[in-house]
Amino acid sequence: MLTQPTLLLDKAKCMASIERMATKAKNANVLFRPHFKTHQSAEVGNWFRDFSVECITVSSVKMAVYFAQNGWKDITIAFPANILEWSTINELASKINLNIVVESTDTIHALEQNLTNPVGTYVKTDTGYGRTGVNAEDYESMQALLKELKTCRNLIFIGFLCHAGHTYNTDSKDEIINIMESSRQQLLALKTFMANDFPLIQISYGDTPSCSLSHNFEGFDEIRPGNFAFYDTMQASLGSCSLSDIAVAMACPVVAKHPERGEIIIHGGAVHFSKDQITIEGRAQLGTVVPLNGYNWDTSKQLGYIAKLSQEHGIIKMGKENFDKVKIGDMLGILPVHSCLTANLMKGYTTTEGELLSMLI
Amino acid sequence: MLTQPTLLLDKAKCMASIERMATKAKNANVLFRPHFKTHQSAEVGNWFRDFSVECITVSSVKMAVYFAQNGWKDITIAFPANILEWSTINELASKINLNIVVESTDTIHALEQNLTNPVGTYVKTDTGYGRTGVNAEDYESMQALLKELKTCRNLIFIGFLCHAGHTYNTDSKDEIINIMESSRQQLLALKTFMANDFPLIQISYGDTPSCSLSHNFEGFDEIRPGNFAFYDTMQASLGSCSLSDIAVAMACPVVAKHPERGEIIIHGGAVHFSKDQITIEGRAQLGTVVPLNGYNWDTSKQLGYIAKLSQEHGIIKMGKENFDKVKIGDMLGILPVHSCLTANLMKGYTTTEGELLSMLI
Repeated sequence: MLTQPTLLLDKAKCMASIERMATKAKNANVLFRPHFKTHQSAEVGNWFRDFSVECITVSSVKMAVYFAQNGWKDITIAFPANILEWSTINELASKINLNIVVESTDTIHALEQNLTNPVGTYVKTDTGYGRTGVNAEDYESMQALLKELKTCRNLIFIGFLCHAGHTYNTDSKDEIINIMESSRQQLLALKTFMANDFPLIQISYGDTPSCSLSHNFEGFDEIRPGNFAFYDTMQASLGSCSLSDIAVAMACPVVAKHPERGEIIIHGGAVHFSKDQITIEGRAQLGTVVPLNGYNWDTSKQLGYIAKLSQEHGIIKMGKENFDKVKIGDMLGILPVHSCLTANLMKGYTTTEGELLSMLI
Repeated sequence: MLTQPTLLLDKAKCMASIERMATKAKNANVLFRPHFKTHQSAEVGNWFRDFSVECITVSSVKMAVYFAQNGWKDITIAFPANILEWSTINELASKINLNIVVESTDTIHALEQNLTNPVGTYVKTDTGYGRTGVNAEDYESMQALLKELKTCRNLIFIGFLCHAGHTYNTDSKDEIINIMESSRQQLLALKTFMANDFPLIQISYGDTPSCSLSHNFEGFDEIRPGNFAFYDTMQASLGSCSLSDIAVAMACPVVAKHPERGEIIIHGGAVHFSKDQITIEGRAQLGTVVPLNGYNWDTSKQLGYIAKLSQEHGIIKMGKENFDKVKIGDMLGILPVHSCLTANLMKGYTTTEGELLSMLI
């Protein structure tokens, strides 16, 4: 019986999403290298093997170590390489096929000086997100980096790695598909420009919204979506999935009710959900409330939403009809806004069959 | 040597803050029952024993179990009791002096029906924060609850428990002190109103901003501040502390620099800091950057601020002079906006002396 905040995982929904993405990649003849930062779980990772996944993406050296210990032999750390961790990178590279990401000559120099094992190396390429990476249209900087990489013994240049995170700042599916299209054009133009000196450049492309919505992966050698394995209400609000595709829900106990303001207090706060929010009809929402029946939830009915989170409290807003049906001691289902951050906080899953799954801690 | 995101803890600063609050409580003749949700660490908890602390506050049953296992014999769970956890509450109450918080007859009935051990019981009282609890001026509801509690065998009524969290939504120290004053008046009026039937009512009062700024705890029987042991930039912005009082800082490695936009990328994201923010001079800030020298940081100089956080990336804005001095591979110190949420994510501390301290996981 569920008695406290618990992260539920519906394996069937997760497997369906993995299969859909794996099939899409296969049909498009691109490598499927899913990002494991979303689930961070050895057991969930193993589910991907059913779809012939052998190559994965992670977002930190620590996560690479964890998945290498759990049998993964081909890992890309899709985060600007931290030169201070060269020793762990070097050790990992002695055991598995490890790829890293660089974006400056300083990082290249520091790593080349210290590494004794070959490491596949991508240049982080920015096609408009503006978070980090070398601007895809800044050919001069790109040439300088690639020239530098050519002299390296242990940094083996592979190609360009892009995360088009600006797909998250969109208002329509068309906008998302357009961002992928624009990214593709920039990456292919860059590849063409460099083709004389580097004829074998690979393009690695990521982000769940565009990989979910587009079927055209032309020009890409691999895709690296991560969130799609769970999805969440942010993805649903972008149009990448429907609410019924979301494979995780928090189960949270009702501890207080405030009829005069239509608010329900749950045990379920920022230490369970984190604090990402979406805006729906002008209101900030930090989670979507759905009915819970044992370990299963029903997305056909939305009961309300989380309006505020403090450390342990969640404040749910609910219309009168639903409010009156909820009792103190009920467990409510909550679809998270950002499943990656929620999973990272919960440090484990209970499947809808009642199985406990572990995570990297 | 620090190589990855690490939560540093300055024991001397922490001890100074504990001593200050303990002395204040002693001088005011109120019990000091610190909230341990901020640090969630057995070792840090033991530091409080130097100041004769024997009674503590936590925010979940899980946390109560952890600190009971670590030798604490008098614990208040300052969160609306979750009736689904009655069995663990009952077991804890057989071993230690346990206090809980109720705010509805439904909760009182369910617990009274199941508990076989006596549990100290506070009524959660809302003096204007509006999160949860019974309105302090709603005498009718209060009377109904107290009447109910009087019939209980195992719920032993102690008094009113109040967290004046609206001190966090203020613009001046005076406003914070006024909120405490108004809360005090409401709580004392309520106590007077109930005095005939309940002559021994105790008042438990919490929140770091007002406990830090006021010296007048008249009428309170105990205070329950928690965040003060670490403080953070939110508290500094409220005026509860100065930046030099903050006892924790994240050490984060610099992985990329973007001179054209004055941005530095660190490994340090939402999975390290959580996402609370403060607004300074019209700009959202998710952390304050200070120089780091080994395991120690210097708050006399502010180098910049975190402008954005994604899962693993932190984006720092920095003026040109400081920007030019920072190198890839440097470790920067970051004062967190909300130390409780940061500590909860990091699951452990490294003291400025290099000692590793564990936390509840």
